Amino acid sequence: MPEHAPAHDAVEVISAKRDKHELSDSQIDWVIDAYTRGAVAEEQMSALLMAILLNGMSRAEVARWTAAMIASGERLDFSSLDRPTTDKHSTGGVGDKITLPLMPLVATFGVAVPQLSGRGLGHTGGTLDKLESIPGWRADLTNEEIFDQLRDVGGVICAAGAGLAPADKKLYALRDITGTVEAIPLIASSIMSKKIAEGTGALVLDVKFGSGAFLQDIERSRELARTMVELGEDAGVATSALITNMNVPLGLTIGNANEVRESVEVLAGGGPADVRELTIALAREMLTLAGVHDADVEAALDDGRAMDTWNRAIRAQGGDPDAPLPVAREQHVVTADRDGVLVEQEALPFGIAAWRLGAGRARKEDPVHHAAGIDLHAKPGDAVRAGQPLFTLFADEPARFARALEAVEGAYRIGDEGEAVEDGGPLIADRIGR
Amino acid sequence: MPEHAPAHDAVEVISAKRDKHELSDSQIDWVIDAYTRGAVAEEQMSALLMAILLNGMSRAEVARWTAAMIASGERLDFSSLDRPTTDKHSTGGVGDKITLPLMPLVATFGVAVPQLSGRGLGHTGGTLDKLESIPGWRADLTNEEIFDQLRDVGGVICAAGAGLAPADKKLYALRDITGTVEAIPLIASSIMSKKIAEGTGALVLDVKFGSGAFLQDIERSRELARTMVELGEDAGVATSALITNMNVPLGLTIGNANEVRESVEVLAGGGPADVRELTIALAREMLTLAGVHDADVEAALDDGRAMDTWNRAIRAQGGDPDAPLPVAREQHVVTADRDGVLVEQEALPFGIAAWRLGAGRARKEDPVHHAAGIDLHAKPGDAVRAGQPLFTLFADEPARFARALEAVEGAYRIGDEGEAVEDGGPLIADRIGR
Repeated sequence: MPEHAPAHDAVEVISAKRDKHELSDSQIDWVIDAYTRGAVAEEQMSALLMAILLNGMSRAEVARWTAAMIASGERLDFSSLDRPTTDKHSTGGVGDKITLPLMPLVATFGVAVPQLSGRGLGHTGGTLDKLESIPGWRADLTNEEIFDQLRDVGGVICAAGAGLAPADKKLYALRDITGTVEAIPLIASSIMSKKIAEGTGALVLDVKFGSGAFLQDIERSRELARTMVELGEDAGVATSALITNMNVPLGLTIGNANEVRESVEVLAGGGPADVRELTIALAREMLTLAGVHDADVEAALDDGRAMDTWNRAIRAQGGDPDAPLPVAREQHVVTADRDGVLVEQEALPFGIAAWRLGAGRARKEDPVHHAAGIDLHAKPGDAVRAGQPLFTLFADEPARFARALEAVEGAYRIGDEGEAVEDGGPLIADRIGR
Repeated sequence: MPEHAPAHDAVEVISAKRDKHELSDSQIDWVIDAYTRGAVAEEQMSALLMAILLNGMSRAEVARWTAAMIASGERLDFSSLDRPTTDKHSTGGVGDKITLPLMPLVATFGVAVPQLSGRGLGHTGGTLDKLESIPGWRADLTNEEIFDQLRDVGGVICAAGAGLAPADKKLYALRDITGTVEAIPLIASSIMSKKIAEGTGALVLDVKFGSGAFLQDIERSRELARTMVELGEDAGVATSALITNMNVPLGLTIGNANEVRESVEVLAGGGPADVRELTIALAREMLTLAGVHDADVEAALDDGRAMDTWNRAIRAQGGDPDAPLPVAREQHVVTADRDGVLVEQEALPFGIAAWRLGAGRARKEDPVHHAAGIDLHAKPGDAVRAGQPLFTLFADEPARFARALEAVEGAYRIGDEGEAVEDGGPLIADRIGR
């Protein structure tokens, strides 16, 4: 017999968290629902968010908060596909195009990959922005189209619909203007509410640390990963996380079209070592969680099977995988001023530079320049000679180069042979999960 | 040479306080000004208020915050009166009518008393509400009328104009709905910004503790008093505070018209001992701070001088001090059910009961019933006999009695002779100031 939901009051809920009490299930359900309906005002929710940021949340509170956000919208269900589903989420980094080769690679093994993604804001790029540099490709699919493509191709990368966790959409916009973005319970519930609502059976999290990551400190990244793995497991989604290094850009491209080009290289069995390494590691995680053990993922890259899936997925969404990608109108090459070894190449400044070149957007309504970005010609540890190109900037408007160059000033350094390379250690630092 | 004010950003200011940094003068000036202009949104200010509540503020920060609120509006200046000015502020309590006898008493000694007051909200009554039970009396005066009355009568109790610290008015409304009322830096700056802007040269604070007070805990009351005394002194206002007991209602009346009646009794040299004691103590503080030492304030109550000033002040604002006060249409007497001693009479429940009878308002647009309230016939420590009236409830609508009686259930108790009286100790617990 359904009971009438107990009514709460915004000041009561805010005061409870302010005074370090644990919020009850009913308080959490009420406040998320009332906020989504507009019955709790923005200024009340922002006070609550700040109290959560400063006083924290228990595991039970974060789980309930996440469940309440899921309940605010629709929930996809892929059970009628009759095969396991698996997905990956990255907390975002500079040059992070892993979703592009990863989706077709994993789908090749008969597992469905519903990779619902977002657009970029700030210096970390968005998967959809990258793919939109492919002529004809479209990000917005209906739920039916998503389902059909999962059945026919095995994988899909597309925009997460507005129906998933609408409470999160409101909360995210509010956090952005109220200094409450960096609360682990809020980050974790924001990511996981969308991924759980998306209906995946397994989920691998790529939680980055380092200068180009959302959280710089590895311990905070571990804490975020643990919180999200717990949320996934509590919701019945097989979840694990890799803690990965984002002190140096990932691969040799930062932008949109150039990242697609690099992804296709990886799908052709080539590409930069770090992009290939992370793609393979995440694919193994995704497949293992989905119950596919000992898959030879390297072979699927090297023998063209993953590339076939890629081509079919791009075509299914109206894209032409063979069409030339957009080319920037202007380029600017930066060369080495001495012989030596590249000992430093900081992710964040290069991310900001690509963003200033037009690869990213400052406001969500801004367009992205698909050909803008940076190609790196050397990575930390590489020997370089005076006059050799270190990196090339691409932009459609030459006026953008000056501020991009300003961003990378002091962000790379050529040292002597034998000097320690400052890359923050190995690419994959840790794994969290069962 | 005035410099261009540096621009700040709401997220920057919020993040600084969130991360436990001290806000700079320029950040505080900017955020208060931008909030008053509407350039900082309500949801941004509420996040900042919650961060202030949880992370605190230094003495310098509170002082600057207060100064910025003062700078948001006009500032009165009574220096051309050519006599000292002195004022009192109470944090509010049940039966607290002290401003009424106090203003004329102090003004009798040639000191100007600009007592700019407010209306009640919740269970603590408002000085203006009480005075408005006097036929013809009006609370709203122009600055010129205030000045004229200070010159001609020596004292005035009237509404604080909207021009004083408008930032505080906005902040107060926001704090009320966001669970950020109970932050000492915010309480202190709210009170002191209005009092400093009012232009008084000396200020005595009556900071209450106990069940009927805004802050129950005496240590929190002391902290609030210290913060306010520092703010006053830093702004050049001679300031002190009495820490007074609000566990038991003050005097024998709680309401509006009945509190005026009791105030007039004190002005006639009579009245309940506690109301007389606190009036005299606060008058001595106000006069001492204003430079009038050894004034015989008791004599001014007993010989009718204070009453003369009262009558002139009431008439100056259109009131008739001799007109009969409103009388309630209904009353309900509660009697003792046994012989013994009244050992308990809790302030808060009696305040709530009076409020439910119609003496106070739930929303600021509600009217007040001037004749509604409670007359107490015994105070803690008094011997009582079975059948003797303990208190009388007054209301214009008989339907109000039931919920008022519910409020006081268990809030008073008759014990055996010799049993300890639970009144929370002496009326005046401490003094803070130089």
